[in-house]
Amino acid sequence: MTTSRLTSFTDGVIAVIITIMVLELPVPQAAGLAALKPLTVLFVVYALSFVKVGIYWSQHHNVLQAAKRVNGQVLLANLFFLFWLSLIPFVVRWIGQAGITRDTVLAFGGIMLLCSLSFALLLFALLGANEADAPINKAARRGRKGPITVLAYLLAIAAAFFWPYVAVAIYIAVALMWLVPDKRFEQLID
Amino acid sequence: MTTSRLTSFTDGVIAVIITIMVLELPVPQAAGLAALKPLTVLFVVYALSFVKVGIYWSQHHNVLQAAKRVNGQVLLANLFFLFWLSLIPFVVRWIGQAGITRDTVLAFGGIMLLCSLSFALLLFALLGANEADAPINKAARRGRKGPITVLAYLLAIAAAFFWPYVAVAIYIAVALMWLVPDKRFEQLID
Amino acid sequence: MTTSRLTSFTDGVIAVIITIMVLELPVPQAAGLAALKPLTVLFVVYALSFVKVGIYWSQHHNVLQAAKRVNGQVLLANLFFLFWLSLIPFVVRWIGQAGITRDTVLAFGGIMLLCSLSFALLLFALLGANEADAPINKAARRGRKGPITVLAYLLAIAAAFFWPYVAVAIYIAVALMWLVPDKRFEQLID
Amino acid sequence: MTTSRLTSFTDGVIAVIITIMVLELPVPQAAGLAALKPLTVLFVVYALSFVKVGIYWSQHHNVLQAAKRVNGQVLLANLFFLFWLSLIPFVVRWIGQAGITRDTVLAFGGIMLLCSLSFALLLFALLGANEADAPINKAARRGRKGPITVLAYLLAIAAAFFWPYVAVAIYIAVALMWLVPDKRFEQLID
Repeated sequence: MTTSRLTSFTDGVIAVIITIMVLELPVPQAAGLAALKPLTVLFVVYALSFVKVGIYWSQHHNVLQAAKRVNGQVLLANLFFLFWLSLIPFVVRWIGQAGITRDTVLAFGGIMLLCSLSFALLLFALLGANEADAPINKAARRGRKGPITVLAYLLAIAAAFFWPYVAVAIYIAVALMWLVPDKRFEQLID
Repeated sequence: MTTSRLTSFTDGVIAVIITIMVLELPVPQAAGLAALKPLTVLFVVYALSFVKVGIYWSQHHNVLQAAKRVNGQVLLANLFFLFWLSLIPFVVRWIGQAGITRDTVLAFGGIMLLCSLSFALLLFALLGANEADAPINKAARRGRKGPITVLAYLLAIAAAFFWPYVAVAIYIAVALMWLVPDKRFEQLID
Repeated sequence: MTTSRLTSFTDGVIAVIITIMVLELPVPQAAGLAALKPLTVLFVVYALSFVKVGIYWSQHHNVLQAAKRVNGQVLLANLFFLFWLSLIPFVVRWIGQAGITRDTVLAFGGIMLLCSLSFALLLFALLGANEADAPINKAARRGRKGPITVLAYLLAIAAAFFWPYVAVAIYIAVALMWLVPDKRFEQLID
Repeated sequence: MTTSRLTSFTDGVIAVIITIMVLELPVPQAAGLAALKPLTVLFVVYALSFVKVGIYWSQHHNVLQAAKRVNGQVLLANLFFLFWLSLIPFVVRWIGQAGITRDTVLAFGGIMLLCSLSFALLLFALLGANEADAPINKAARRGRKGPITVLAYLLAIAAAFFWPYVAVAIYIAVALMWLVPDKRFEQLID
């Protein structure tokens, strides 16, 4: 089984996820630009989610290009990852409705944490499906961004109980960290 | 006519179906996590539908990779299958609105049954379009999951009249059965 | 310029159009199956639109496989065709809201007529972009379904002023006519 | 890294953006065709946005076909461009709700300006990623439509403060300008 069937489906799903989030932005009730003000926070959350989903797409592509083989377990791990990713628009809608509160920020962090962990699971499944000298093995061993992300989300979830905006700041910091291109895979594939 | 034109369109449609289901989840009315509680059942239904659509995508890909030719009848059977699949988000929305009741569970089972039957129809159309020694013939003859699924759905529909939650349990059992990878096609294609 | 860039984009757009129509079906207000009854007519309209969009996808693929070249005018004609196709979910939603009336049936026929005419325009643009001995020329010359469709829609629009259900019957007849596979292109490409 | 991974994802996102806009058109409240009248202006805005997104897809494809290489910066610039493009359905929905007013027309112009500027940024990133003699360098140097577009949008934004409809006229004029096929890239690629 090759990786192309997996990537084309995943590309489609991620393209829809990243785009339908805009349907979750509540329409301003008035005609004036002032009507956009209450949307500022939500706009930041939308941009943040857009960037996160975009980064996941990029990472997914990198990882699968470094992999040579997929098996049934990879298919399942991939579906499991897409499931959590698909809930991001739902959390964005909730924040749009209820604002930045302890619980909405907790939910956002929880979904993001589950996306990270399920992506790690996908990586492990890929390692299992490929031989020990495949590029994916070399590439996966050197990553530090993954563990840092999980720790940061745990920290953010703890912070959300007391200061929701600190949690949001951590989410933004994690996104910025990932925006620095990931040399590990690029060098292997280029 | 090759199979690639069919798979790219089907991949697109299934990617949209699996992703827009999240638009059907009703947004919590309050900011607290307690507001998520009434969503628990719906969340299970959403996860179940997500898995089922994901499995159909996987099966569709397996079957079409084993097929070498498609004809007009296959195109029609495929469209017919996609039609029933496209109604899954509609049933999820109805359950989200009205909860787990006799009739919503019946509707869910009915749509799932029609998806199964129309997928079987697609398989027959593919058998007709391919020669007797094509891999699809060998692969299709040995399947037992298909008939079991149809029987289980009929059972679930009967059960729904008295105990809707038993029907839901059967739906979950069928999904778990399909999550076990299908060796039949993998061995042929790998 | 090759045709592949055009088909992949068009496939994506049509896959989304055919799938988001389900979002236009209004959710039943009650939990009983009886709540689905007022949806019967809308369900027929949904199925009809699903089939029509599916047929357009199939025709679009056939025509573009028979074409060897596209130019800027083909791109524009294609965009123009997709524009009218994209309005089908809008009409379905309106019928869902307002039922089968003179004016909703007129609007449905109008959009369908514009889809037909803009598809013919796309065909002419493709004829212009390809040489006189390209397969598209041979294939396009023998078609009778196109003119019949335009005539039938004009008839349906006229009928809608007096008997909306007669118009719906004509729409269904046209869809059935197209479901008969189109040999012209298949023979050339197979 | 090749360009194909970027184009397939971008194609998917743009296909969804261009299609979900129709979900933003408010459904007519009555059954009569007269109920469509208040939608006339919104219909023009919808058509305008459809054309603009379609043109961006076409330009994106042209530019990436002329490019030979992409790097991490191109990926980011592309994501940044898609972000602004994804807000077009949001503005269309706002105009649908609040009509053609100073502020909604300003917002439309602002988003369009940001789409133009971020597309220019993407072009610069592509120039940086490719060698000095790549076709993209030759093609990008001769373009005049880009600067004209930015100037026209700035003009339209200024005009929107006093005469919103003049701004709309400028938007339409810019769209028509882009509908004239762009020979620069076509000649290089054909």
